[in-house]
Amino acid sequence: MITSLQNKYVKEAAALSSKRKERDRQGLFVVEGGKMFGEAPAGRIKRVYIAKSAETEIYEQYGSKLSGLSCETVSDEVFAKISDTVTPQGILCLVRQQRYNIEEMLQDIEKKHVLFILLEDIQDPGNLGTIFRTAEAAGADGVIMSSRTADIYNPKTIRSTMGAVYRLPFFYTENLSSVISRLQESGVCVYAAHLRAEADYDDCDYQKSTAFLIGNESNGLREETASCAEKRISIPMEGRAESLNAAVASSVLMYEAYRQRRRCGNRF
Amino acid sequence: MITSLQNKYVKEAAALSSKRKERDRQGLFVVEGGKMFGEAPAGRIKRVYIAKSAETEIYEQYGSKLSGLSCETVSDEVFAKISDTVTPQGILCLVRQQRYNIEEMLQDIEKKHVLFILLEDIQDPGNLGTIFRTAEAAGADGVIMSSRTADIYNPKTIRSTMGAVYRLPFFYTENLSSVISRLQESGVCVYAAHLRAEADYDDCDYQKSTAFLIGNESNGLREETASCAEKRISIPMEGRAESLNAAVASSVLMYEAYRQRRRCGNRF
Repeated sequence: MITSLQNKYVKEAAALSSKRKERDRQGLFVVEGGKMFGEAPAGRIKRVYIAKSAETEIYEQYGSKLSGLSCETVSDEVFAKISDTVTPQGILCLVRQQRYNIEEMLQDIEKKHVLFILLEDIQDPGNLGTIFRTAEAAGADGVIMSSRTADIYNPKTIRSTMGAVYRLPFFYTENLSSVISRLQESGVCVYAAHLRAEADYDDCDYQKSTAFLIGNESNGLREETASCAEKRISIPMEGRAESLNAAVASSVLMYEAYRQRRRCGNRF
Repeated sequence: MITSLQNKYVKEAAALSSKRKERDRQGLFVVEGGKMFGEAPAGRIKRVYIAKSAETEIYEQYGSKLSGLSCETVSDEVFAKISDTVTPQGILCLVRQQRYNIEEMLQDIEKKHVLFILLEDIQDPGNLGTIFRTAEAAGADGVIMSSRTADIYNPKTIRSTMGAVYRLPFFYTENLSSVISRLQESGVCVYAAHLRAEADYDDCDYQKSTAFLIGNESNGLREETASCAEKRISIPMEGRAESLNAAVASSVLMYEAYRQRRRCGNRF
């Protein structure tokens, strides 16, 4: 059992939990809790940390997945130090990051109508994770983020994805405009969510290949990014509401696309 | 200028910011930041606190609203203590709570088709505030919450509402089932959001008076509450997604209702 905060494995986990630079350098991230461990692809797990007091329970529940993985039991005190949560669940693991690129994400474009979400400078980790969670549920094919978007591997973001981070392709780009051009070349229609728009979001047909472009929580999209889109769309609002939460706006758009795709006929 | 943490006004603000019991007892809550102060109804503001270093800027921007209000300038150190945010904006105020009841919320039922959102035991302050923000934008007429739902007057919740808390009627109830009966007597159709449902959410007509019933983030609706509803509806999900974030689910439902209400004809 590891009891020292100076242990190299402990220091490694703590650094990966708190520092984006370290996650980027090592290509690893930290996943906490039983549910997120259970969903992690076993082949991508580098090491598992188990809190002493939770050991029996964890092995009872996840024994078959844990066998064959590199496991370290640590004292509860050490576990609390490397955990990002207030009430740790007694298990966390280091998982290898997965790299995707635009060509992989476009590989099915001849066979199906794709749905992408493009994020420019989204800052809130919870919003980012929630967008991933909803994107998977709405049948999206991938998420593409500007390099100034929050880190998807932030522990809070990882938790908010509820596992979608393992399954949904994504990448960061320094040049969102060139990615938009590449999507357009492949026939993807790009819609920019905007407060001043030419059409209501539910006046457009998203049944063909579609991408939604969503801007920063405070400032929206940069003008040069919005102008790359085929069309600007807005979500109507009543009362004195001035905008929607970024994760809510993304969800309303993705679920409208998914609604249209699930229906042949017209209902209400 | 107040420089002591022992000052009675300072102690009052700090207690109201951190303790629900104190907010309930006094019928007051704390609002932070220029935007939320600017939107607060002047007649409901009891006292304003301004940080010394922000004084000139605050009076330049909000001078006309501040005249006639009871204002206290406090040292930056004191302001940081009563503020709930990491980077305080230099202004906060105490606002009187507004009380609503079911009869007030139903007063327009003869004239229009209403839209309500009913929340059972929603726990996350950010989710709750986001639901209020979206409800106002989607044209909802009010929010009704079980007594175990998070406190709408929590400073984090207040911020997430983006001002909707001042404008949208709401109340807490010990007995959600009896409120549901009262709504049904008035002709409101109550839909329970449920993972096992008889209909997809977009297969129902929400153009008449409608209420959506949303359950706790982890456990969903209690069976006895869900069984009060006319119909259970679910939001379809792809991939391995097991559920949506509660604020996202609420938003998808409210925007579907709003979409149907805005359209005469059928489009996509």
